[in-house]
Amino acid sequence: MFTGLSAFPLTPFAADKPDEAAFLRLLQRLTEAKVDSLGVLGSTGSYAYLTRAQRRRITELAVAHSEAIPVMVSIGAVSTTEVLQLAEDAQQAGAAALLLPPLGYQALREDEVFTLYQTVTRHVSVPICVYDNPGTTHFAFSDALLGRIAALPGIASIKIPGVPADLQAARERIAQLRSLLPETVSIGVSGDAFAATGLLAGCDGWYSVCGGLFPRIAQAITSAAKADDDQRVSALDAQLQPLWALFRQHGGSLRVMAAAAAIAGLTAPDCLPRPLLPLSATDAQQVADVLAALTLA
Amino acid sequence: MFTGLSAFPLTPFAADKPDEAAFLRLLQRLTEAKVDSLGVLGSTGSYAYLTRAQRRRITELAVAHSEAIPVMVSIGAVSTTEVLQLAEDAQQAGAAALLLPPLGYQALREDEVFTLYQTVTRHVSVPICVYDNPGTTHFAFSDALLGRIAALPGIASIKIPGVPADLQAARERIAQLRSLLPETVSIGVSGDAFAATGLLAGCDGWYSVCGGLFPRIAQAITSAAKADDDQRVSALDAQLQPLWALFRQHGGSLRVMAAAAAIAGLTAPDCLPRPLLPLSATDAQQVADVLAALTLA
Repeated sequence: MFTGLSAFPLTPFAADKPDEAAFLRLLQRLTEAKVDSLGVLGSTGSYAYLTRAQRRRITELAVAHSEAIPVMVSIGAVSTTEVLQLAEDAQQAGAAALLLPPLGYQALREDEVFTLYQTVTRHVSVPICVYDNPGTTHFAFSDALLGRIAALPGIASIKIPGVPADLQAARERIAQLRSLLPETVSIGVSGDAFAATGLLAGCDGWYSVCGGLFPRIAQAITSAAKADDDQRVSALDAQLQPLWALFRQHGGSLRVMAAAAAIAGLTAPDCLPRPLLPLSATDAQQVADVLAALTLA
Repeated sequence: MFTGLSAFPLTPFAADKPDEAAFLRLLQRLTEAKVDSLGVLGSTGSYAYLTRAQRRRITELAVAHSEAIPVMVSIGAVSTTEVLQLAEDAQQAGAAALLLPPLGYQALREDEVFTLYQTVTRHVSVPICVYDNPGTTHFAFSDALLGRIAALPGIASIKIPGVPADLQAARERIAQLRSLLPETVSIGVSGDAFAATGLLAGCDGWYSVCGGLFPRIAQAITSAAKADDDQRVSALDAQLQPLWALFRQHGGSLRVMAAAAAIAGLTAPDCLPRPLLPLSATDAQQVADVLAALTLA
């Protein structure tokens, strides 16, 4: 389950609570498209804004409606005690894998992050994907630390925050990273704007925000990369450049994807958890214009 | 309560839980010294590592043992819903003031942070101190935003992350900041290494980590600053330079203060919440040596 397209849906909100009906509508698009795995309660799934009970409930819903597609669930929390409780909840709810970010409040040291992964791998029975994204966690893994963590039993994949924009440099980076990891540990690219280059550079899969709402085009890119059809990958990625530009413009993908889901009629117009605010009407119109030109389905 | 010395004690842990007996030992030092206010569950009080129930319990303990010294409590959380619940808990438990950091997971925009403060001030009946510390929150307030937030009814103080090292530059900075704030809003300095300069530059108080364990010297600095005794402030601050150096060396004050509390026999040897790890034996010995030379009480 740690290769191919892993689709990360939003957890839409309404009236300060997860909107379960809207979540299931999003999930259905992904199961109908038969994505390779579901990444629920990722950053895009707003896990950090949900209570433990809400996270358990969303996991149960996802598993129940997954149509046998494996479900990965983020167990990120600041305290290790809470991480272990969330891991227990996710396993009991049927998660096939766990996504573990090194969430900090006080800046974490390398030995603290290693001990976190060691502790969690000792407690759980499903595989773990390491979440490497300094943009949300503010922790930057060194290669040496990634190598040590990847060698722990139970670590199955690394979700990397991106690759160099130049394909040759990206290939070198992925080769270098792979030399540090056991063969059983896959590398998945995230940061959607990097996905095409990352897949062409040898990543095993794409942990995809775009794929959480528009699975067909994300699948097309992932399949073309698997078939070594560089030209088709680049052509599809070029189509999506206006979407990546919106992600950059709005400080990340979440607010844009929330606007996109609302525009598609899948969620309430304002589906973000507070303190996050929806895009302005003008910005949302720009998202609508970009999406209309793309005719994604 | 937003002037003078506000002492921020640790919330010591033992066996993955708050160590209530050790917390009360720390609190007693502060009430005996008669600090001006108590800042419990601040960053130093590890609020981000505690559950809602643990935070409520620590607040209740602090209020019950405060000897009528006003207690300020952090209500920081990623989700606004949780912030409001924590505010309700803290008020019911008898907190005299609330400390509100703009905690992010997704990077927050200015309008989101303003709306957070607006929402909370509308819901609570005790004054709020704005927590400005990009080191833990990763949010940098603009002066314009601080001015807008400070104008909200119920905002009583701004806890600033430090001042320029040069006293004249610090004076200019505080004067500039004060020109943006209503007269009723105090400015308190934090980042202990900046405290002496901050107080001499015109800050109304010191939100103090050092004062949470060593209240006497922190009071001496605060009193000397109030009496405009610049020489005494600088002399006391010079004494504490080895402690500030340890804070810098260990990426902040928390791990050093946890070691210091353990060395003083007030807490378990390892009193930090996981994933945080105590200093190594060598580093802890260095802390012990510095403290022995300082003879703080």
